[in-house]
Amino acid sequence: MLIESFQNDKIKYIVRLLSDNRFRKKEGVFAVEGKQENERALKFGFENKEFYISENIFKDSLPTGNVHLVSDKVYDKIAYRGSSEGIIGLYRTPITELKNFKPSENSAIIIVESVEKPGNLGAILRSCEAFGIEALVITDSKVDFFNPNVIRSSVGCLFGMNIFQSGNEEVAEFLKTNSYKVYTTLMDESAEAIQSRNLKNKSAVVFGTEHSGLTDFWKGKGLNTIIPMSGSIDSLNLSNAVAICGYEILRQKMA
Amino acid sequence: MLIESFQNDKIKYIVRLLSDNRFRKKEGVFAVEGKQENERALKFGFENKEFYISENIFKDSLPTGNVHLVSDKVYDKIAYRGSSEGIIGLYRTPITELKNFKPSENSAIIIVESVEKPGNLGAILRSCEAFGIEALVITDSKVDFFNPNVIRSSVGCLFGMNIFQSGNEEVAEFLKTNSYKVYTTLMDESAEAIQSRNLKNKSAVVFGTEHSGLTDFWKGKGLNTIIPMSGSIDSLNLSNAVAICGYEILRQKMA
Repeated sequence: MLIESFQNDKIKYIVRLLSDNRFRKKEGVFAVEGKQENERALKFGFENKEFYISENIFKDSLPTGNVHLVSDKVYDKIAYRGSSEGIIGLYRTPITELKNFKPSENSAIIIVESVEKPGNLGAILRSCEAFGIEALVITDSKVDFFNPNVIRSSVGCLFGMNIFQSGNEEVAEFLKTNSYKVYTTLMDESAEAIQSRNLKNKSAVVFGTEHSGLTDFWKGKGLNTIIPMSGSIDSLNLSNAVAICGYEILRQKMA
Repeated sequence: MLIESFQNDKIKYIVRLLSDNRFRKKEGVFAVEGKQENERALKFGFENKEFYISENIFKDSLPTGNVHLVSDKVYDKIAYRGSSEGIIGLYRTPITELKNFKPSENSAIIIVESVEKPGNLGAILRSCEAFGIEALVITDSKVDFFNPNVIRSSVGCLFGMNIFQSGNEEVAEFLKTNSYKVYTTLMDESAEAIQSRNLKNKSAVVFGTEHSGLTDFWKGKGLNTIIPMSGSIDSLNLSNAVAICGYEILRQKMA
């Protein structure tokens, strides 16, 4: 049956899932727009609950599962972005715990204390994926990996990644248990440039917030490491700093 | 005289300068919010026309020049962002032409065909400044370096930089005249990883748009060069790609 009313309960539910972070968490369900994004969610085993397909915008054969057809007008209303190719899938939010994660030999992980904008988190996910970072951990309790803007700006690449949200204490414990070499992005007299650190072995690089840097918690918990700069402002956008770190790790492994 | 009315012509003028790109271009005037940002504009010799200072939010001694005091309520209305410290300066937009730019020996420049979002352009400006890139050239005719969001996200660092907006043809001519080694970020069988290119000498790296990459114009005009990636998606946010390129240039120069 074609859904043509904005007042339909299912439509109201999706709109709320897309726009209300708390509701999304409470429900344990998140929405994915776009063809490539849904393909990746399915490929990496996310549990699909339903699909909402626009009557005319969607051009492919229907996915298997619980499929609802909606009028283009209704789809336009629920779609978070214009070019989402007429498909929205709802999936169960996975529950992942850092302490259960088993890192592989010589892998690198990145820890970020806080990310301010969904777009920045999406870009960070993209570069972690691009450079083979094994896991991304955010220690900010407010972070929401399944925010539609994060999914969009990550181009859906977060579905294939090990992502965790965890407190600083738990992260420090995890790093110790798993014998990571820890690099803290803190500028002091002991700090060395990132390219002079050996990042080929099991490494964890910890980033603070864009505005205030690492919190005191991380002081003394790793080797202070900086991205060298030669300009007059000496500040980088957080996602750029993470991307450079990912690149440097891969560059060293390729050398 | 304290300006207390939103209907004041000067206030209407600033609001339009901040929000209307075309009007800003036509007037040849742009607005700068924030203390650090205004300090940098003045430091780098931008021609100040007027200052608008909030009655109570601004905490420092008044700048010299044509200073207008406005009520906090009016300031709140015109301020593009919350934390701009009670100062907005208006400056004459500089007219810079790439053909008149004299690059120094062994300097690197970055050329970007198009940048979609002001925040991305701001981040690109920040990393070019941080890594000592001598000039940034955008070949998109729509770009507006003096958009308030660009100034904000660049933390005002664009004022100390050589920035140009220019057509592809003119850029290619400039690179030839000035004997740049050109690196085009195109993936084909001849492409080499950026770390294997010698970027210590006079280098120009050309980036395409985020979605469609370099236009055909640049094909065959440089050595194809890529940022190595090991993930499954192989795509980076444009500002992250530029940041990595800037880092790699500085890293090679430091080695």
